[in-house]
Amino acid sequence: MNQDYIKVDPWSIIEDNFDPEKVKSSESLFSIGNGAMGQRANFEEQYSGGTFQGSYIAGVYYPDKTRVGWWKNGYPEYFAKVLNAPNWIGIDVFVDNEPLDLNTCTKVSNFKRELNMKEGWYQRSFVATLPNGIELSATITRFLSLDLDEVGAIKMEIELLNSDVKIRLVPYLDSGITNEDTNWDDKFWNTTAVQQEGNSAFIEAHTMKTNFATCTYMHADVEYLGNALKPKSGKQTETYVSLEFETQLAKGSKISLVKFGGYTVSRNHQESELVNAAKNVLKQTTEIGFDHLLQKQKDTWAKIWEMSDIAIAGDVKAQQGIRFNIFQLNQTYLGKDSRLNIGPKGFTGEKYGGSTYWDTEAYCLPFYMATKNQEVAWNLLEYRYNHLEKAIENAEKLGFSNGAALYPMVTMNGEECHNEWEITFEEIHRNGAIAFAIYNYYRFTGDYSYIPKMGLEVLIGIARFWNQRVNYSEDKNKYVMLGVTGPNEYENNVNNNWYTNYMTKWCLEYTSEQLNVVKEKYPEDYKRIWSKTKLTESETDEWSKIMGNMYFPYAEKQGVYLQQDGFLDKVLIKVNDLDKSERPINQKWSWDRILRSPYIKQADVLQGFYFFENDFTIEELEKHFDFYEPFTVHESSLSPCVHSIQAAMLGRMEQAYTFYLRTSRLDLDDYNKEVEEGLHITSMAGTWMSIVEGFGGMRVKNDQLCFTPQIPKQWESYSFKINFRNQIVTITVSGQEVNFEISGDKELTIQVNNKPVTLIPGKIVKA
Amino acid sequence: MNQDYIKVDPWSIIEDNFDPEKVKSSESLFSIGNGAMGQRANFEEQYSGGTFQGSYIAGVYYPDKTRVGWWKNGYPEYFAKVLNAPNWIGIDVFVDNEPLDLNTCTKVSNFKRELNMKEGWYQRSFVATLPNGIELSATITRFLSLDLDEVGAIKMEIELLNSDVKIRLVPYLDSGITNEDTNWDDKFWNTTAVQQEGNSAFIEAHTMKTNFATCTYMHADVEYLGNALKPKSGKQTETYVSLEFETQLAKGSKISLVKFGGYTVSRNHQESELVNAAKNVLKQTTEIGFDHLLQKQKDTWAKIWEMSDIAIAGDVKAQQGIRFNIFQLNQTYLGKDSRLNIGPKGFTGEKYGGSTYWDTEAYCLPFYMATKNQEVAWNLLEYRYNHLEKAIENAEKLGFSNGAALYPMVTMNGEECHNEWEITFEEIHRNGAIAFAIYNYYRFTGDYSYIPKMGLEVLIGIARFWNQRVNYSEDKNKYVMLGVTGPNEYENNVNNNWYTNYMTKWCLEYTSEQLNVVKEKYPEDYKRIWSKTKLTESETDEWSKIMGNMYFPYAEKQGVYLQQDGFLDKVLIKVNDLDKSERPINQKWSWDRILRSPYIKQADVLQGFYFFENDFTIEELEKHFDFYEPFTVHESSLSPCVHSIQAAMLGRMEQAYTFYLRTSRLDLDDYNKEVEEGLHITSMAGTWMSIVEGFGGMRVKNDQLCFTPQIPKQWESYSFKINFRNQIVTITVSGQEVNFEISGDKELTIQVNNKPVTLIPGKIVKA
Repeated sequence: MNQDYIKVDPWSIIEDNFDPEKVKSSESLFSIGNGAMGQRANFEEQYSGGTFQGSYIAGVYYPDKTRVGWWKNGYPEYFAKVLNAPNWIGIDVFVDNEPLDLNTCTKVSNFKRELNMKEGWYQRSFVATLPNGIELSATITRFLSLDLDEVGAIKMEIELLNSDVKIRLVPYLDSGITNEDTNWDDKFWNTTAVQQEGNSAFIEAHTMKTNFATCTYMHADVEYLGNALKPKSGKQTETYVSLEFETQLAKGSKISLVKFGGYTVSRNHQESELVNAAKNVLKQTTEIGFDHLLQKQKDTWAKIWEMSDIAIAGDVKAQQGIRFNIFQLNQTYLGKDSRLNIGPKGFTGEKYGGSTYWDTEAYCLPFYMATKNQEVAWNLLEYRYNHLEKAIENAEKLGFSNGAALYPMVTMNGEECHNEWEITFEEIHRNGAIAFAIYNYYRFTGDYSYIPKMGLEVLIGIARFWNQRVNYSEDKNKYVMLGVTGPNEYENNVNNNWYTNYMTKWCLEYTSEQLNVVKEKYPEDYKRIWSKTKLTESETDEWSKIMGNMYFPYAEKQGVYLQQDGFLDKVLIKVNDLDKSERPINQKWSWDRILRSPYIKQADVLQGFYFFENDFTIEELEKHFDFYEPFTVHESSLSPCVHSIQAAMLGRMEQAYTFYLRTSRLDLDDYNKEVEEGLHITSMAGTWMSIVEGFGGMRVKNDQLCFTPQIPKQWESYSFKINFRNQIVTITVSGQEVNFEISGDKELTIQVNNKPVTLIPGKIVKA
Repeated sequence: MNQDYIKVDPWSIIEDNFDPEKVKSSESLFSIGNGAMGQRANFEEQYSGGTFQGSYIAGVYYPDKTRVGWWKNGYPEYFAKVLNAPNWIGIDVFVDNEPLDLNTCTKVSNFKRELNMKEGWYQRSFVATLPNGIELSATITRFLSLDLDEVGAIKMEIELLNSDVKIRLVPYLDSGITNEDTNWDDKFWNTTAVQQEGNSAFIEAHTMKTNFATCTYMHADVEYLGNALKPKSGKQTETYVSLEFETQLAKGSKISLVKFGGYTVSRNHQESELVNAAKNVLKQTTEIGFDHLLQKQKDTWAKIWEMSDIAIAGDVKAQQGIRFNIFQLNQTYLGKDSRLNIGPKGFTGEKYGGSTYWDTEAYCLPFYMATKNQEVAWNLLEYRYNHLEKAIENAEKLGFSNGAALYPMVTMNGEECHNEWEITFEEIHRNGAIAFAIYNYYRFTGDYSYIPKMGLEVLIGIARFWNQRVNYSEDKNKYVMLGVTGPNEYENNVNNNWYTNYMTKWCLEYTSEQLNVVKEKYPEDYKRIWSKTKLTESETDEWSKIMGNMYFPYAEKQGVYLQQDGFLDKVLIKVNDLDKSERPINQKWSWDRILRSPYIKQADVLQGFYFFENDFTIEELEKHFDFYEPFTVHESSLSPCVHSIQAAMLGRMEQAYTFYLRTSRLDLDDYNKEVEEGLHITSMAGTWMSIVEGFGGMRVKNDQLCFTPQIPKQWESYSFKINFRNQIVTITVSGQEVNFEISGDKELTIQVNNKPVTLIPGKIVKA
């Protein structure tokens, strides 16, 4: 049974019952973030029950010493840990000296959490009876400002319901925090200064080893009966500072605390100026005030939704699911800073470490390209350009030379930080996704400028890697690629993984083409790049030789490309013919058994058909889909979306819809029983792709936006917008018709079902 | 540069200079053991310099929680750690209250260590000047008794050279010890009782989790000027107890301390009787006395050498090397107890964990068969029979059923305790070596009784495993074996490893044959086994189908079996054509590069040709040797011996000798720069094989002992003995002639160079 305690609602995530068993799940699901920081939905007041504390700052990590059973040459020294940062949300509440702690309360009623996705805030309210019999009601509203992204805001309102008592509110900062995920119980943070000034407090701390300096700050005001209370200094230790607001509270009257807090970090400020920066942002914030800052939040989210919403009629669960995905993607990454990227768990947990996987290029880029201005996608691409030198170093560590670049499987700062040889050393197809993203960016935006400015150098580094990584097989008279792991991680160390080989050929071809384009159209850049990379013609000649003679395993009888050499030796029993008790195989089977089985964790050959769909006929797609889909177990959150898109291409809408369902409510319904650990952020972009590219059939071909719209029979209609080269196209698909609108003042000709349709501003065009 | 500080001597290992940098190396090289316990050559007195403390008890281990970067289904929970046991050798020496510590002495001269292999004792002597200016000479002799294998003995003699002073000798026991190798800094030992009685002391301690109970004990007597000194009670803590002998020592006169100590363990005694057992053995020992016990030691070693020595004339380094190997094998395992086995580091270090690898069957068994009575080999075989149930459980954990047995890659108690998937789950060829050992035992000893009594059940479990592990490939119309690691661990997760496939076929054939033999000749056993194993004819029919239709990768053009599918796709550059700076590849290359290279860590196809040499012609051997040898880097200590034997078979004595040299002084000359960690015990048996099976060409064919003797031109002669079915044959090979002798009173006809030769007691037969 999947969980189902989250209430169905088109715009909010709602929980309406206090269940200590669900606290950790809800901490994940009600997470908030603003691209620069984010946090799990931990309680502000103390809580002695089970909880997973997490507050995260974008780009702040710790290089935890790698833990392996048996060291292998080339392993990275460290695994970048997503770091739990100092706590600024804490507000302890004492009523007649009894602490408010929902875990010890004799009764909790009217409990409700709401994550309002439309407006970008999170609220919790409840009525609680403390062990001393005192009953109170509380409402706590919290958000992380999109407008001032160093600032979070909390309003806590408390009312005593059955007596007059002394209340003490203790907002605090605490840098004495720990990580759940640590290899060696290292100390991750070093606190250097703790200070309090009036209603504010500041803790300066830096991470060990990486030395990211931060100031965690807060400012608290308490109002009671129209008056501001004056705080006393509270406890202060080496890692903790609090304020204390105390008053006699009359039954039925409300006390209200507003706390602003957050982080200033050395990525954005001089290290010596962090406290001043915090004071500056606090000055701004307190002048704006809680209510006005919240209003700005609502306005900013309205703008995000204006562009990125997908509205579904007739299926509220699906509606809630897709909005949750879009909301979380926007909470995680807003594209303002090319030094940041999209971690697989965003700001919702510690698992996986590192922030950047090939997920970014393969799954997230299309979402950001279509729903944001193109600088966001540019920033994602620039991120990899900035890491090119490290990618070259990474390749050198593995024995490559002459500027060959191998981008890391997992990274924070460009260095590899994963430590399974079969992934780190062998899942090299990631290089291809990074090259493909360059192509995809130009295809979608029409902006070629990235390539001469940055992209061509990246492509050359990647082409050089493939050149050195393939080898010529005398036996086959072909270039082969030995010892790789493809996107399907249920195969390790295979020879001639079709996807990787195809990627290689494509990368070499694409790089060669771009060299020619840049040579012709950007001669200055060409000269600069040629001289910087010290490229030689003998190298590009080698590329030509390889791309013209690459080996692709093929099964004559079946008429399909083989996932890798030897695939046909497997026992080809289809997934549906497996006993249910054997699944999921990653829980039921030992690793070796998975490896020698034909079962596919994640689209592999089909991933190639997705990227390069124009290279194959629809009949070829069908043949390969029918061959591989029956062996795919989709035990990666990234798998079903590609199958959903391809099922839609093949007109199999029922199947497409089934695959769509697997991704859209993965976390809300906790399919994998692990939502406590955090959300699956990057796969959420795959869900978006399932609708837009799958059901909507959105493509860009020859500089034209194209659609082949279909609709699942379970839905009445759906609608989404595409930002195509600064023109906003809205498509609405119902069972009966498909409508298009275009904003702005320029016409645009698109293709709908392979026929040109001209969109005119101010007109709804049926197609 | 390899190390060369060990003096060359035919019978002793000698160091004649004190070098703190060499202390850890020497602690390994001068290790002593008696099969039941063993210890590194740590100093008795305190030493503040770099040291690696180690005293080990056979069969006492700790299941340290596995440490892996990313857990994979089926990983064993623990890794059995070889445990540093409580220290019984300690004797602190204080001169005028100044401790003797070679690391703080202002001068150390006349330092000498000798490990006398002929007589089985270790002695250290030196002259030292303490910081307080006092000069003393000391001689410490130590041995672990082969006759009373719970007993170790130390005699420490000290003489003051320049003044009369107060001397205090403090023999102690200490269970507050640690392991260098621990995954989680667990506490391994729990001490439950510490007591002192007169000149004796006892510490009872048990291992955590495994609960091996031990009593570490000591008894010390000090004699000065013909009188016994009376001890005072020394310090006593929860994990420590000492005696103190104090007296005024006159310049030029000698004080002598004899300490007996060791362990009584719950493997051999009731847990409640351990102290009494220690008292009993102490009573025996003190009655015998140090000198007489040492004499017994010499006599017992003489008997061992009488049977197992290999004498080489004309090459003292080679002589010292082979004797060191034979000595260490005998120190590690004497075959008295079928619950024990041969750890890869013996009693000389902690590395690798577990005591039993396929090394035992593949490399060590031949040595023990030929140099001991056959019960020793029987015990090694019985060890695996006793673990059959665990091997079946191990296979079940990996998804096999119906009594299929997969013996562990590494074990202490029959459970798997290695944790790399590519080894644990995939290096399944080990099952074949265990079956082969059964065949080998019968071939050598002519004793069939093991098979009906125990071996057939083992064979059935193994055959069942292969039956389930292969699969039928429709594509090839053959049975294939996917996802294995062969003996060459520089390939992982390959398909159709020739060695493993050949082993499979052989195991199924051999098991089927033995079923028929037992059915015919041991009908009662047959009935019992058939009923116990619930074997069915449909199973044995499947075995027949598989063994008749197994797939073997073959290269038509080259006329050789391929190590695995796809081997010919590699870049086939020979080892000699690699730049020297690239080697050893396991230090210079990343793991993925090693995997996709053609380089072989350890004989793989050739290992199969070694086991099954009668299945192939000498021309086939030559072709395969010439194909694979040039790609073999021998970066396993187990590799060169097989190549040495095969080079000898091919008449390439110069090459055979080169391979021999690589193994025989591996540790003495510290080729791999790791002797500090301990010795390579199991590969030492391979060195023995290189001489006996390689140069001597010893085989057993059709119940006859056969030789095809050759001699490296660097040697004048060599000589060894073989215990062939309780008849002792001595062969002496010189450049000029080959002589045989037989002991006892029975004639024996052997084959020399394929011609029958009859050996007559009392006569030297030239052949």
